[in-house]
This record gives sequence, C-alpha cells and structure tokens, in this order.
Amino acid sequence: MAEHSVTMERTLRKLLSEKKYATLRDILVTMNPADIAAIFDELEEDRLPLLFRLLPKELAADTFVEMEPDAQELLIRGFSDSELKEVINELFVDDAVDIVEEMPANVVRRILSQADPEMRKSINEILRYPENSAGSIMTTEYVSLRPKMTIEEAITRIRRTGFDKETIYTCYVTKDRTLVGVVTVKDLLLAEDDEATIETIMIPNVISVNTHDDQEEVAQMFSKYNFLALPVVDTEQRLVGIITFDDAMDVMEEEATEDIEKMAAIIPSEKPYMSMTPFEIWKKRIPWLMLLMVSATFTGMIISHFEDKLANLVILTAFIPMLMDTAGNSGSQASVTVIRGLSLNELEFGDIFSIIWKEIRVAVLCGLALAGACFLKIYLIDGLLLKSFTGLPAGINMFLVIGVICLTLAVTVLFAKIVGCVLPLVAKKLGFDPAVMASPFITTIVDALSLLVYFALASAFLPI
Amino acid sequence: MAEHSVTMERTLRKLLSEKKYATLRDILVTMNPADIAAIFDELEEDRLPLLFRLLPKELAADTFVEMEPDAQELLIRGFSDSELKEVINELFVDDAVDIVEEMPANVVRRILSQADPEMRKSINEILRYPENSAGSIMTTEYVSLRPKMTIEEAITRIRRTGFDKETIYTCYVTKDRTLVGVVTVKDLLLAEDDEATIETIMIPNVISVNTHDDQEEVAQMFSKYNFLALPVVDTEQRLVGIITFDDAMDVMEEEATEDIEKMAAIIPSEKPYMSMTPFEIWKKRIPWLMLLMVSATFTGMIISHFEDKLANLVILTAFIPMLMDTAGNSGSQASVTVIRGLSLNELEFGDIFSIIWKEIRVAVLCGLALAGACFLKIYLIDGLLLKSFTGLPAGINMFLVIGVICLTLAVTVLFAKIVGCVLPLVAKKLGFDPAVMASPFITTIVDALSLLVYFALASAFLPI
Repeated sequence: MAEHSVTMERTLRKLLSEKKYATLRDILVTMNPADIAAIFDELEEDRLPLLFRLLPKELAADTFVEMEPDAQELLIRGFSDSELKEVINELFVDDAVDIVEEMPANVVRRILSQADPEMRKSINEILRYPENSAGSIMTTEYVSLRPKMTIEEAITRIRRTGFDKETIYTCYVTKDRTLVGVVTVKDLLLAEDDEATIETIMIPNVISVNTHDDQEEVAQMFSKYNFLALPVVDTEQRLVGIITFDDAMDVMEEEATEDIEKMAAIIPSEKPYMSMTPFEIWKKRIPWLMLLMVSATFTGMIISHFEDKLANLVILTAFIPMLMDTAGNSGSQASVTVIRGLSLNELEFGDIFSIIWKEIRVAVLCGLALAGACFLKIYLIDGLLLKSFTGLPAGINMFLVIGVICLTLAVTVLFAKIVGCVLPLVAKKLGFDPAVMASPFITTIVDALSLLVYFALASAFLPI
Repeated sequence: MAEHSVTMERTLRKLLSEKKYATLRDILVTMNPADIAAIFDELEEDRLPLLFRLLPKELAADTFVEMEPDAQELLIRGFSDSELKEVINELFVDDAVDIVEEMPANVVRRILSQADPEMRKSINEILRYPENSAGSIMTTEYVSLRPKMTIEEAITRIRRTGFDKETIYTCYVTKDRTLVGVVTVKDLLLAEDDEATIETIMIPNVISVNTHDDQEEVAQMFSKYNFLALPVVDTEQRLVGIITFDDAMDVMEEEATEDIEKMAAIIPSEKPYMSMTPFEIWKKRIPWLMLLMVSATFTGMIISHFEDKLANLVILTAFIPMLMDTAGNSGSQASVTVIRGLSLNELEFGDIFSIIWKEIRVAVLCGLALAGACFLKIYLIDGLLLKSFTGLPAGINMFLVIGVICLTLAVTVLFAKIVGCVLPLVAKKLGFDPAVMASPFITTIVDALSLLVYFALASAFLPI
C-alpha cells in the first residue's frame, strides 16, 4: 500500500512539474479519495492547492474529508469564498463538524459564513453536544419515511432525496418527528407487493441511542448488532440524527488506542504521533512518569527501613528486581484482562466475586509453577554455577534463603493477581476510567507489596 | 443494557415455567437476535431447546449465530436432523464456517451432512484458507452483475436473487468470473436512466483484497476507505467472495484485544475470559511469566557483581526500584506508541530515524524534568524529612549521591526511550510481531540497563 502510493506520488509530481494537468486529472479521477488524500498530505504547500483544484467537485469534497487537519487548513486559507462554499456544502454534516472542531477560530468563522443556512444550523446543533457523545458524532442527513406511505412511494422518495444522504440503506419511519420504525432498502426492494404500506413491513422495535450516550457504548452496539446505521433520539424519542458504521469503526479504533495509551501511562492524544512535536508528546507522557516516580518513594522507604537487615545479607538485594518484575507482570496480566473485558462489555462489576475466585485459582497455579522453577533456577544457576551463596553469614542456610525467595514469589503473585483484577472493577464502579486508574498504578502498588512480603518473610525465617 | 436483559430474562423464565408459549413467542419475535442470544446463553441446558424451538425459522438462525459456542453445541446435539438442516441452510456461509471451526469433529460431520450441497461446498472451500486470511473470513454470497446488463435488469436480478445474499448494497460486476467493476444499489436507484448499462455507471478501478491477505490488513482497509464490503479475489483476479463491514469490525476488535494481551505478556486467546477455566488462563499467562522471571537473572547478576559496593553504601539500594520503574515506564510509553502506530499503519520501518530523533528529544525533555523533580524530592523528603542520608560513610557527600541518582535517571530515560521505539520497528522488519517481541521484554532490558548505568556512575563519582 505504502510502496504503491510512493510510486504514485512520484508520477503525479512529474506530471505536475511538466504541467500535464489533463493527464493528472484523468489519473486522479480513477483513484479512491482516501488514496488521493494520502498523497496530498505529503505534497509541498505550494503544489497542493493547484493539484486540489484539478479534482471534480464531489471527488474534491470526498478527498478533503480524508486529509490531515494541517493540509485542510492550508487549503481553506488558500480558497476563495466561492471555492470554500463549494467544498463545504458538498460535505456530510458530521464530516463538516469534524473539520470545524480541528480548525482555529478564524477559519471556523469563514467556514460557517460560507455554509448554507441549513448546513450551518446542523453544524451548530451538533457542536452543542458534549465531546464523545452520540450527538457529537451523528449526522443529520438521513432518509425519513412516513408509516402510511406505500413501498412504491417510499422508493420514489428515496430516489428523489437520496443524493445527499449519508446512507439510504437504512430508512427511519417517523410520526410527528417521533421514531416509530426502521426499514431497509433491502426490505423495500425485495417486498412482494409495492402497494403495501411502510408500517406493515417496518420493524417497530427500533434499537436507538440517546444524544448524550457515550460514543464508546454506541460503538459497542454496532459491534453487537452489526447495524449499518443507528438512529439517535432525544429524551422525547424524537429522531435527531443517525450514526453510520464507518464512524463507529473510527470510534472503536480511537477508543482501543486510548485504552492502550492509558495502560502505558500516557495521556491519550487525538493527534497522530508523527504530527506531534516532541514538546506535545512530552506533555502527554511526563505527568504519569512524575507521579509514578514520586509514588516510588514508598518502595524506597520500605527498603530504607530494612536497610540494616539487607546489609547483613546483601544477597537478598539481588533478587529484588526479579520479585518486583514478576509480581508486576502477574498483576498487569490480570488488570489488562479485566480492563479490556470492561471496555468490551464482557465483564461488569457484578462479576467481581467470580473474577476474584478465578484469579485466585490462576494465581495459585502460576505461583506454584513460578516458585518451583525459581527454586531450581536459583539453586542451579546462582547456587552451583555462579556460587552467589558462598560466604553466607554463619547460621544462614542457602536453602532457607532460596525458600524465602520462592515463598515471596508465590505470595506476591497471589496478591498481584487479586489487586490487578479488583482495582479496575472498583475504579469502574466509582466512576473512574479503569484503564487510567488501574494500569499505571499496578506496578507501584505491587512493588511495595512484594518488598513488604519479602522483608517480612526474610525477618521471620532468617536470623538477620 | 445488562440490567435490561436481566429483567427480560426473569420475565421469559416466568412465562416459560407457566408454559405460556404463545406469549413467549410474541415477545421473542419483537427482539433483536443478539439480545435473544444473550439471554439464551444464560439459560439452563434443559430449557434452552424448548425456548429456541419457539423462534420462527429466520430469527432462529440469526439468534443461533449470535450464541456462545457452548450453547450452540448443546442445541445442535439436541436437534433432529431436519431441525439442524433448517438452521444450517438458513445461515450465511461465513457464519456457518465460524460455527464449524468451533465445534468438535463429530458435530462438524453432522453439520456438513445436513448442509445443502452448495453450502457444503462453500464451507469446505472457505475452511481451506489459512487462519486469519481474507479467504477464511469471506462469504461467497454476493450479488454479481454483468457489464452489459441495463440498470433495470440489474435491479430485477437483485430483487430475484437478493434474499440470501449477505449484502445487496454493493454489487460486483464480473466478466468471465473476473472482477471488472463495482456498483452500489444507491447508484442503481439514483441513476437517471434505467436503460443505461452497468458498465457505464460502475467504478472500474475496484479496490480488492487477495484471499491470502492478512485479516488485519483487510480491517485496516475498511477503516481507511469506509467501505460496506470488500471483494476478495484469487491470484487471477477472479472474484471468489466478499467481506462485509461487520466482519471487519469483529476483526478490528479482536486484533486490538490481541495487541493489548501481547503487550501485557499474555498469549492471546480467542475464548472470552469468563468461559475459560483457570487452567486455560494459566496456560496463556505462565510462559511469559517464566521467561521474564528467568531473564531477570541478568539483573540479579548485575546486582551480585556490585554487591560489595552496595554493602558500602546501602542507601543506593533504596533507589533501585524507583530508577527501574521510571525507566521501564518511559520505555513502554515509547514502545506502546510505536506498536500501536505500526498496527494502524501510521508508522513503518522507513520512519525509524525520524522516530528515534523524535524520541531522543522527548527523552531529553522527560529526563531533565524527572531529574530535576527527583533531586528536589530526594533532598526534601529523603534528605530533610526522613533523614535517610545521616550516617553516610566518611568522604561521601549527600549531594553527590543525589546527583548520581538523578544523572542515572536522566541517562536511563534516554536509553529506555530509544530501546522502546527501536525494538518494535526492528521486530516488524524481521517479520516478528512487534507487540509480542517488544513490549514484555522492555522492562527486563531496561532494568538491566538502568542498573548498569547506576553502578557505573556510582563507581565513577563516589568513593565506594
């Protein structure tokens, strides 16, 4: 894909510098808007407007939508008022809203002044909905039918009004603006009797979302029901817009990326990595690094507190990283599993006891396997091969030391798995984001826990 | 959603125990198959077949598809041959394949023996494609048109053959089985002249995928182009099937979950968490835990090597967890960002130098900020408040010790960010999965690096 577009870019550049505009246009019209946009994003600032103007009206608008905000802004600044008017009014409302949200205030003013009154009204309406709500990602261009229409009338209506609708395949049946049913073009086309009324073939129990529902829930409904589009209603069940599957896909991808970033202690950003400055990236990464660094004070305090015991048996220090890392890995395995399950609605807070019980059994299996392997590894490698245990203080038996290490391992794996699965569930219950509350903290919490267990067991079993 | 289905389940149970089958059926037919399936999954084994038999034929098949494999198997085992035949032949081929893939061999034999010859042929064909390939997720039920047909003939053909097609909205134009164009029902319905031929309105440059393309690439194409369906062709450009957006959504979700699991050192599983036994979960988690535990031997060896120096200045030990964790967090921020960028095709190996350069600048910013904050924190909290630095050996200045710690922090953050961004890119280049190769190893590599830097700087600047 990428290789292909590099070759294509070179061809287009060559044609452009040779001023072969007719050929350029002939090539561009055969291409998909997303591919054209990918090439345009790479062009120099002075060449872009020239090439863009070669596109026919509809293709120009479709390509414009797919471009990066920087390139869009550049183009808008170069457009005459009539060019801007043409592009803006060719857009679907939800795409226009996406663009408006990315642009600086003076560009937004120009866009709105050139939009048709109806378009301007729709844009302003959608902009009023809270960020990440169903209302903010919907479009107002849908096909609506009346219950008493015949199928033939409905098809005529679709043929007459369908041009500027985001989808014509799912049509919504309304009565006094209230959503009363849904009918697909497939149903209309395959119906036996053209004179039957819409209300006889529509599905009356319409699954819909509310304008204020979270976009993540909306995306989950698409993946559950496999709908092409979902209607958006207000609190009085009046139809105000629709969301189409392509927007739901974008949301799914966005939300998965956000979860991944949060789990890695990064504040999510909507800008792609390559177009962020190092300072912008720094601002997304430093808060968690700072917080986690400061919270590591506790682990430092624990070690300081047991400093004298460590000084008596320095070999114990060598196993601290292994114990902390293994516990940390065990904990994040559990937390990440639960966080993803919550995101996909596969798990909920009510499952907490069965999850804990499952994790305890997993932890016992993991703990036993790890402790066993650890015993062998330390005995064979550290003990026999590296002779790390020679010169132990009098009265301290090598096997006792290894035993304390392995027991610590088993116990901390158990603690880590329990903390790992409980933390995201509790965060969710308290209304916090599980990914952000649970994942970055797991390591710090589990570090402290493993040190406490380690020193407690060492003090109990070893004469130090 | 979940609340709602609990109430619904209770109502249905009550009606079932009162044997009010007509009422039950009336309720079930108003519901969406995915919602019915969610309730059926929770039913006891003996009630399920009874309730399932109440569903009308088409709804029964749609519900069957949405159910969990365990419940599907239970139903199939209870079906008579004619019941099985009815359900199987009502399914879309790709759904039938998904079910066949989950069932034990004897159930598969029964399914295939009851399938229509054409369905059996299609299932067997799709089963031959490698797992996770485009061929393995496609369906063979699409609408194909001829280039010379008129629009009216095309619409008639769709009306006649559309019933059992997975989608009728995107139609593929073939000539001697070769894919030559694509046309949507929207284009057909909105066309001005019914007598125009398909070849005059079709888009001839069809974007298609090959049967052997990876399903992840296919999902990426859906999210890039916003298609409803993508045609699948063989090496001779012959159309063999289509993939619809709903399958692409499932793939996107699945792949995101897989990436998240791999980053958390879990071997991905296709089974949902709640239906896995503790032993199955253990098998997915223990390999990485073992490997990472054993690889922590290196960190242990490094500490053992510097044991004498640590014994001279035990306070150094207290800062090991903070240094390792901060470096680990910094590294995984970079690696996770790059891994996700690779998954979404936003980054590629060719970007390696600009990525490294960007990460170096981010690392310098992070390193300076962290070192500065760390200096203040240690001086104020550990120095003045906790008095951890009283009783330092003669000739060792507190500020020098703090300086070594902060310098280590800055240097390891730099190393961690570079390792974090390079490792996934190199893994990808070498044909390994970046998520699995890079993420779990980051901590271990960065742990070792930070200890080496720590002890090297301590040896250089402190008289120990």
